[in-house]
Amino acid sequence: MANLLFLLPILALSLSPVFVAYASTLQDFCVTNPIGQGNSVCKDPKLVEANDFFFSGLHIAGNTTNPVGSKVTPVFASQLPGLNTLGISLARVDIAPWGVNPPHTHPRATEIFTILEGTVEVGFITSNPENRHFWKVLHKGDVFVFPVGLIHYQRNIGYDNVVAIAALSSQNPGAITIGNAVFGATPNIASEVLVKAFQLDKNTINYLHSKF
Amino acid sequence: MANLLFLLPILALSLSPVFVAYASTLQDFCVTNPIGQGNSVCKDPKLVEANDFFFSGLHIAGNTTNPVGSKVTPVFASQLPGLNTLGISLARVDIAPWGVNPPHTHPRATEIFTILEGTVEVGFITSNPENRHFWKVLHKGDVFVFPVGLIHYQRNIGYDNVVAIAALSSQNPGAITIGNAVFGATPNIASEVLVKAFQLDKNTINYLHSKF
Amino acid sequence: MANLLFLLPILALSLSPVFVAYASTLQDFCVTNPIGQGNSVCKDPKLVEANDFFFSGLHIAGNTTNPVGSKVTPVFASQLPGLNTLGISLARVDIAPWGVNPPHTHPRATEIFTILEGTVEVGFITSNPENRHFWKVLHKGDVFVFPVGLIHYQRNIGYDNVVAIAALSSQNPGAITIGNAVFGATPNIASEVLVKAFQLDKNTINYLHSKF
Amino acid sequence: MANLLFLLPILALSLSPVFVAYASTLQDFCVTNPIGQGNSVCKDPKLVEANDFFFSGLHIAGNTTNPVGSKVTPVFASQLPGLNTLGISLARVDIAPWGVNPPHTHPRATEIFTILEGTVEVGFITSNPENRHFWKVLHKGDVFVFPVGLIHYQRNIGYDNVVAIAALSSQNPGAITIGNAVFGATPNIASEVLVKAFQLDKNTINYLHSKF
Amino acid sequence: MANLLFLLPILALSLSPVFVAYASTLQDFCVTNPIGQGNSVCKDPKLVEANDFFFSGLHIAGNTTNPVGSKVTPVFASQLPGLNTLGISLARVDIAPWGVNPPHTHPRATEIFTILEGTVEVGFITSNPENRHFWKVLHKGDVFVFPVGLIHYQRNIGYDNVVAIAALSSQNPGAITIGNAVFGATPNIASEVLVKAFQLDKNTINYLHSKF
Amino acid sequence: MANLLFLLPILALSLSPVFVAYASTLQDFCVTNPIGQGNSVCKDPKLVEANDFFFSGLHIAGNTTNPVGSKVTPVFASQLPGLNTLGISLARVDIAPWGVNPPHTHPRATEIFTILEGTVEVGFITSNPENRHFWKVLHKGDVFVFPVGLIHYQRNIGYDNVVAIAALSSQNPGAITIGNAVFGATPNIASEVLVKAFQLDKNTINYLHSKF
Repeated sequence: MANLLFLLPILALSLSPVFVAYASTLQDFCVTNPIGQGNSVCKDPKLVEANDFFFSGLHIAGNTTNPVGSKVTPVFASQLPGLNTLGISLARVDIAPWGVNPPHTHPRATEIFTILEGTVEVGFITSNPENRHFWKVLHKGDVFVFPVGLIHYQRNIGYDNVVAIAALSSQNPGAITIGNAVFGATPNIASEVLVKAFQLDKNTINYLHSKF
Repeated sequence: MANLLFLLPILALSLSPVFVAYASTLQDFCVTNPIGQGNSVCKDPKLVEANDFFFSGLHIAGNTTNPVGSKVTPVFASQLPGLNTLGISLARVDIAPWGVNPPHTHPRATEIFTILEGTVEVGFITSNPENRHFWKVLHKGDVFVFPVGLIHYQRNIGYDNVVAIAALSSQNPGAITIGNAVFGATPNIASEVLVKAFQLDKNTINYLHSKF
Repeated sequence: MANLLFLLPILALSLSPVFVAYASTLQDFCVTNPIGQGNSVCKDPKLVEANDFFFSGLHIAGNTTNPVGSKVTPVFASQLPGLNTLGISLARVDIAPWGVNPPHTHPRATEIFTILEGTVEVGFITSNPENRHFWKVLHKGDVFVFPVGLIHYQRNIGYDNVVAIAALSSQNPGAITIGNAVFGATPNIASEVLVKAFQLDKNTINYLHSKF
Repeated sequence: MANLLFLLPILALSLSPVFVAYASTLQDFCVTNPIGQGNSVCKDPKLVEANDFFFSGLHIAGNTTNPVGSKVTPVFASQLPGLNTLGISLARVDIAPWGVNPPHTHPRATEIFTILEGTVEVGFITSNPENRHFWKVLHKGDVFVFPVGLIHYQRNIGYDNVVAIAALSSQNPGAITIGNAVFGATPNIASEVLVKAFQLDKNTINYLHSKF
Repeated sequence: MANLLFLLPILALSLSPVFVAYASTLQDFCVTNPIGQGNSVCKDPKLVEANDFFFSGLHIAGNTTNPVGSKVTPVFASQLPGLNTLGISLARVDIAPWGVNPPHTHPRATEIFTILEGTVEVGFITSNPENRHFWKVLHKGDVFVFPVGLIHYQRNIGYDNVVAIAALSSQNPGAITIGNAVFGATPNIASEVLVKAFQLDKNTINYLHSKF
Repeated sequence: MANLLFLLPILALSLSPVFVAYASTLQDFCVTNPIGQGNSVCKDPKLVEANDFFFSGLHIAGNTTNPVGSKVTPVFASQLPGLNTLGISLARVDIAPWGVNPPHTHPRATEIFTILEGTVEVGFITSNPENRHFWKVLHKGDVFVFPVGLIHYQRNIGYDNVVAIAALSSQNPGAITIGNAVFGATPNIASEVLVKAFQLDKNTINYLHSKF
C-alpha cells in the first residue's frame, strides 16, 4: 500500500520531465528519466547507454491520407530521451500532391527545412504591423529558415510526394496549428470573439467550429 | 560628400538597434543610441540622463473607435530607450464595451495582465494536440497570465470601458494578430493554402482577404 | 509509517520549487506543483486550470501605517503559481503622503514602475566608481525604469496616497532593503565592519542595530 | 580619400558579424548585414527578402577524394545569413566506403545526425574521468545525437557511400578536428608537450607534425 | 575634415563595447576592439594575438593606505580584452590589518574568494524578509562563495596583510559599495529619504553626505 | 520494505543534482541537496549554513608524481555545494619541473589562469580551418585566458614547481583530456578510425591503446 502511494509521484514526474532550461548544459548529457527509475530528472549516468541517443524509422513515409494531405513525424525529447536539455530536435514532413502543412507556429523554436524530394511552396509572415509574407518555391536540396514564433506553412505544388527534414532549435519546439487553436479549441472560443476578430457571420464561425 | 556617405550607416544602425540578447546584462544599462550620436549600440553612458528611463501618458485612454473596438498603447524599447537589453516592457490596453482584443501571440514574451477598470473575458489556447482553452472573467484588481507564444485574446463583456496594464517579459515582445497575419499578409497567402487549411470555400477566403 | 516518511520529501520539495532557470521555456507552462500532488516540479498539465494563472485583489490598498509609510503587495510565482519559469512578476506599491519605499535592490530583476495615483520622486544610483543618481518627479500615467541590481527608492512628495504598479523581469525578483540588510541582519554584522565602512562611531551603529 | 578610410570599418564589421548571443531573440529576425550596406549588425528589415532565408545545393554530393574519405558541406550563418541569432544550422556529410569523419568536437553545439543513405558506425566519448565510448551502427532512417562539446566520429562500414544530414544547435557551431588541432596547429605545439601528453617518441611526433 | 568626423563614432563605440550578452558564445572569442581599428564590436580575428588574452602584475600588492584599509585590483574585460563575451573575470584583494572591504554587491556576478595570505572574516546577507547573515573566518587556502547580487564584505582580523584572489562570473561584474551609493551619490539622495529609510537625524545624514 | 524502496530514488537524485541551467538564478542560492534530506533539488534554505559556501585546503600542493608530472585539484559544485546554479568554479593546478597539463578542453567553461609560483608555457588552439596556436610564457602574477571549448595545455619550463589558480565559468566545467578520450576510451575507438584519422600504423595505435 505504502509502496503503491510511493509510485504515484514517480508517475507524475514522468509526465513532465522537460522543465529545465538549456541556456547552457551543466553536464555531458541529462537523459530523460523513464518511469520507475527514481525521481531524478536526469537518468543515472551509469545506466545511460547508446540507445538513449538513438531513434530509427525516419526513412518511413508518414500517412498523408487526411484532410490536409500532410503528416509530420516528430523526433523530439519525448521520442529521443537523449535530446533532453540539448536544445535541438527533428521532424520528417510528408506532403501529398496538392496537400498543405497548414499555417502554424513553433512557440519555442526556429525551423530549418531541407527538401529531400518534390517541389514545395513555403512561406512565413512577420509580426505586426507589417505582416510581410516571405515565400519561395523549393526543390530537392533547397533549404529554408522559419524564424522562431512566426506563422509559416508548406504546400506541395508538384505531382510527386514532398519529403523534407525539419530541424528545430528546441528539444520540445511545440506547434500551434492556427485553424485548430482558433476554431477547434476545447472548449470553443466564444463566437462573439471570433465574429469580431475575423469579421465573419455567426454561421461561418459555427461551420468552422464544426470542422475543427 | 564623404560626410554624407558617412551618415548613411548611422541611419541604418538607428533602424535596428535592438539586436542584442538579454540573458544577462553586461553593464548597468545600455540605452538605445539615437540617430547621429555615433554608431555605438549603447548611448555613451556619460550622455545618459533620467529622461532616458522615463515615459509619460499612460493615463490617457487609447482610441477604440475601430472595427474591433480596442486599442493597445505600447511602452517598448522603441518608446522608452532605457528598456534596451533589460527584458521587460509594458502596454496599456483599452477595450470599449463589446470590443475585443483579437486572438494574437507574442512570439518573444509572456504577458501578465492587470485590470484597472471594467469586466473582461480573457483566454489562451495551448499548443497541439490538446489546444486546450483556459479562460476566465476578470474584474478590477484581477491579474491573469498569458504564457509566451500562446494564442490569447480579451473581450469586454461589460457596459463600461475596460482599462488594463499588460507587462511583457521582453523589451520588444512583438505581436502577431492571427487574422491580419493569415488573411491580411502582404502579399496574400495563396488561397489554395487557406482553403485547405481552414476548409473554407474560395469566396469566403477572398472575402477575408478583402477585409484584412 | 513508510507513508509518513514518504511525505517528508514532498514537503521539502514544496519549500523550494523555483530553482529552474528561464532563458527559454521547454513547455507551454510549468505551474508550480503544490504539496501532495507528487514530486514533479511542474504540476501535471492535465490538472492545470485557469485559476493557476489567476490572482485577485490588486485593487486593494496596502496598509501603510508603518515607520516608512509604504507597503509593497507582491504577485510573484509564490502568489501566482502559473508564473513559474515565465520570467515576469508584478507588485502593487502604496506610499502614504511623505512616506518612502526605502533604498533597495532587486538582485534578479529590472523594474518598470507605473504611477496610477499621486506624485512621487523616484531615483536609482549607478555602480562604482561614478555612483550617479538618476532621479525624476513622476505623476499619474508616468513610467520609470530601475535597471536590474541597482539601488533605487520612491518617495511620496504630494498630499495624496501614491498608488503604483511595478512589473519585474523575474518570477522571483527578490528585494534587498539596504537598511535592513546592513544594520538589521541576523546575526548583526560586526560593528567594527560598519564603523569603518560608514565612518560612524560605535554608538550610532548600536543605535542603528537597535532600530532594524 | 576620406571615402576610402570610411569603407575600412565596414569591411572590418563584415568580417565578424556573428557576435550576438541568442538566448532569446529581440526581433523577428536579424539577417547578417553584407558589406557596404551600413554598419548595423542586422540588415535593415526593409531590405530583407526571402532569399536571405534560402540556401540551395544540399542534394549535391561532397567530394570525398581526400585522405580521410569524407566531406562536410556546411549551411551555417556565413552561408545562410537568415540564420543569424536563431541558434541552429545544418551540414551535409558524405563518407566514401571505409572513409571516416575523424574525431572532432563542436564547441558550441549539439549535433543530431540523420542517415539518408548507407551504413555507418558512429560514437562519442564522455568527459573525464570515465571517458566512456557510446557507439552504434546506423542504417538509412536512423538518427543519433552527439552532445555539445564531446569528441565524436563517424565511419562508413559499408560498400556504398554514406549520406547524412547533421543539424546543429548553433548558427556557428565550430568544429575542432583533434588531429589537426593537436598535431597540425600553426605554429606547432612544442614536441616536449606532445611527447609527454601522448607518451610517444619524438620521431613519431615529428612524423605527425609532417602529416598535418 | 570628413576624416575627423569619421573618427567620432569610433570613439563613441570604444567607450561602450561590452554590450553583448554571453548566454552562449557565437565564435571562438570576440576580443574587445580598440579605438581606431574599425567599428566592429569584435577585433578582426586575423589581428588577434596571444597578448589579447594576457594580463600581468597580479603579484603586486595594492595600496591599502586609505580610510578603509583595503584595495581591489580588477582584471575585467576593460583590463583584459580577451575576456569579452566569455563570462568570467578576476580581482586581487589586499586588506591591511584591521582594514575592511566594505559591504557591497556585484549586480552581475557571483564571487568565489580564495585566501592566499592572512586571516579574514567574510560574510553575506540574504534578501528580504530574512536578511540572514552567513559569515565565516577564513585562513590561507580557504575558499568562500558570495552569491550574485547579495551584499557581502571582508575584514582582516589578523596582524598580517590579507591577500586574496576573487573570481567573478561576468566579464564586467560591477560593484556597488553601499556607503558610497547611498550616502555619496552624485547628486545626493534627498535627506528626507535617508532620514526615513535609516531613521537617523538630519545631522547624521549630513555628516554621512560630507564623508562620502 | 516500502521504506527501503523509498530511499532508492533519493539516492538516484543525489547522483545527478546539477541539471539546472544558470542563465539567471531564481533565488538567492540553491545549495545542492545531500542524500537523505528529501528530493528537492535545492537544499531547504532554512537548513543552509555558512559551511555550504566554504571549502578549505587549496594551499596544499597536489601530488605530481605521475607520468605527466601535474595535478589538478578541483573546487566544483560537487566539492562546494553552494556553487550550484551560480556559474563559476575553481581549481588549483600543480606542475612539477618539466611536467605538463596535457592538451584538454572544458566543454562548458572559459578558464582564467593565474600564476602564483613558477614559470610556465601555456597555449590554446582555435577551431577549424585555421587551428591557430596562441601561446605565451607566464611568470608569477601573470594571467591568461583559455576560451570555452578550445584545446589548451600548460607546461612547466622552469626548475621550480608551478602553482596556479584556474577559475572556470561553470559550476561543473568538465574536462576532456584529448589523449585519454581518443586513445583511452572504454571501450576503445576502433583502430580503423584512429589509423585513418591520425595516419598512424596499427602498431602505434595499439601501443597508444596500451598506454591510456
